[in-house]
Amino acid sequence: MAVREELLRNIRSVEPYVPGEQPQHKVVKLNTNENPYPPAPGVERVLKEMDTDRFRLYPDPTADELVGSLADYYGVGKDQVFVGVGSDDVISMCFLTFFNSDLPILFPDITYSFYKVWAELYRIPYHCPKLDENFKIVKEDYYAENGGIIFPNPNAPTAIYEDLEFVEDILKQNRDSIVIVDEAYIDFAGRSAMELIDKYDNLIVTQTFSKARSMAGMRIGYAISNPDLIRCLNDVKYSFNSYTMNQTALACGVEAVEDKAYFEEGVRKIVETREWAKEELRKLGFVFPDAKANFIFARHPEVDANELFQALKENNIFVRHWNAPRIDQYLRITIGTREEMERLFDFLRTYIKEK
Amino acid sequence: MAVREELLRNIRSVEPYVPGEQPQHKVVKLNTNENPYPPAPGVERVLKEMDTDRFRLYPDPTADELVGSLADYYGVGKDQVFVGVGSDDVISMCFLTFFNSDLPILFPDITYSFYKVWAELYRIPYHCPKLDENFKIVKEDYYAENGGIIFPNPNAPTAIYEDLEFVEDILKQNRDSIVIVDEAYIDFAGRSAMELIDKYDNLIVTQTFSKARSMAGMRIGYAISNPDLIRCLNDVKYSFNSYTMNQTALACGVEAVEDKAYFEEGVRKIVETREWAKEELRKLGFVFPDAKANFIFARHPEVDANELFQALKENNIFVRHWNAPRIDQYLRITIGTREEMERLFDFLRTYIKEK
Repeated sequence: MAVREELLRNIRSVEPYVPGEQPQHKVVKLNTNENPYPPAPGVERVLKEMDTDRFRLYPDPTADELVGSLADYYGVGKDQVFVGVGSDDVISMCFLTFFNSDLPILFPDITYSFYKVWAELYRIPYHCPKLDENFKIVKEDYYAENGGIIFPNPNAPTAIYEDLEFVEDILKQNRDSIVIVDEAYIDFAGRSAMELIDKYDNLIVTQTFSKARSMAGMRIGYAISNPDLIRCLNDVKYSFNSYTMNQTALACGVEAVEDKAYFEEGVRKIVETREWAKEELRKLGFVFPDAKANFIFARHPEVDANELFQALKENNIFVRHWNAPRIDQYLRITIGTREEMERLFDFLRTYIKEK
Repeated sequence: MAVREELLRNIRSVEPYVPGEQPQHKVVKLNTNENPYPPAPGVERVLKEMDTDRFRLYPDPTADELVGSLADYYGVGKDQVFVGVGSDDVISMCFLTFFNSDLPILFPDITYSFYKVWAELYRIPYHCPKLDENFKIVKEDYYAENGGIIFPNPNAPTAIYEDLEFVEDILKQNRDSIVIVDEAYIDFAGRSAMELIDKYDNLIVTQTFSKARSMAGMRIGYAISNPDLIRCLNDVKYSFNSYTMNQTALACGVEAVEDKAYFEEGVRKIVETREWAKEELRKLGFVFPDAKANFIFARHPEVDANELFQALKENNIFVRHWNAPRIDQYLRITIGTREEMERLFDFLRTYIKEK
């Protein structure tokens, strides 16, 4: 049965979905920037202690406890924190709330692919300045008149981090535009733009529990800004969907925030493995922009990226590859455990020798 | 600090949010149609047994196991089931996917308040035929040319259920429009329109885990339709947010579906309490449309609804009241446990005698 023409005419047309690879057998999974270590031990404890009788009640729509934990952690007011179902939900809500201009919003041509999707979904005009030949954001491109700005720092999939001076320059040049800095990978990189929240009333910083906090499976993201912009976000959110984060996400999220020592140790291990992995990649002849995220975006001058991608897959090692202009000779390799990376390098050494 | 004029101009303007009452002390909470009984025992078991180490990984975006459980339960194919973060998420996704006509979509003037919100959010034209003087949907109003139709059955907050003949008539008169029947409360009412899925390719039925399955706190909803319309829904969903339901919702949802005996017993108890509560309300002089949901929408000819609402609240009994045209003399009373309802009636007997 196919949809009849009469029904079809009002159905939204989108690119058909190609499900991400979620292999079931034992593989080295370095393809979706997940954390190789489990979440903080308190997460398990709080989950096992949960009173499931309370599931009959709606969750707290204000997420008060989780918001309070994040506020304490970052030393900001509770009225400066907005939470949602992963940073996808948070950023999408920012688009709806703040990007309502006739002028195009700006984001890099090579960046997180959902910015373009949300702009099209919400019919927001957009313009994508090109990264330079080294995959760097050219800050002067963001001096143009615009309806808002968003960029990740570090950028994805390039893993390039720009310092706060760079971010501040964009904020200064755009005092009358909302600037969203998407810091999904900041914990692996350097100073966060959160330091600039009090100085620039046009700044929103978004982060996630999916990477450094090992909780991709729980779907938690957040934005930090000034109380006024956070209130605007909450007004829009509550106006059309009051309850989004479920009770387990709210409770487990608090535990993950509060275990600072565990978090820092996890980040340290990943950064250490990344720095070692960079060395190993260089020895094999790979080139890449200096990676400051939990992944490396690398190419090999003598190896076709797609062929290598397929060969890795046949050997149960999954990385990410895009058949897209400018980046089709690159692979994005998530930093796994030292053991997982050893398996990757064992394969690469043989593969590259045989080329 | 207030948002500067220069920033304000591109911020979406919405009605300021008034948070729902979530009283912390011991109260009789009959205001948000929650279930007074806990979820199926298997929900607690599966939660305690969860491997939290896996939280580091993204959840299955296809929600395969939950989809499979629902398909088995309803005797449909897995390709006929769509799941989301509560039926709010599911219905909102239906609006985005199916309501893209220049003709207005139709839904009753007195109904679930979020239909209007989503229509406005997505800039979908809409028209709201009036319920008749008995708060009944006039099916002939839905014969008009339209861009789609949605109505709850039972309707909210009236609690009136229409039989399948009524639903089928609307489907027949609108072969070229998508018709969504929002069955959040169907388990307390009668036959579901799911029986008509094979007969009408324009039908989508949505349901929720928040009411009869006692899992408002977990945020799970679903739609059942033909494989073509479900594919359209999934295409749209995956195109802009691949991961929405977290791992705990997926696992606990399966348990709740599989315990059919517990589910049926819970529904039976609520229906029994409702029928008894109707008798008690009648004895006190209340009038109401015949209630087929887990709530009763009642008024008293000699008592002002808002005054009674306030008096109940002062006595720690929370029900729902709207200061809205046509319904401002009604209270929506959720069916609690027999004990909670006794507390309500103890208060009402004294209050009405003293009037």
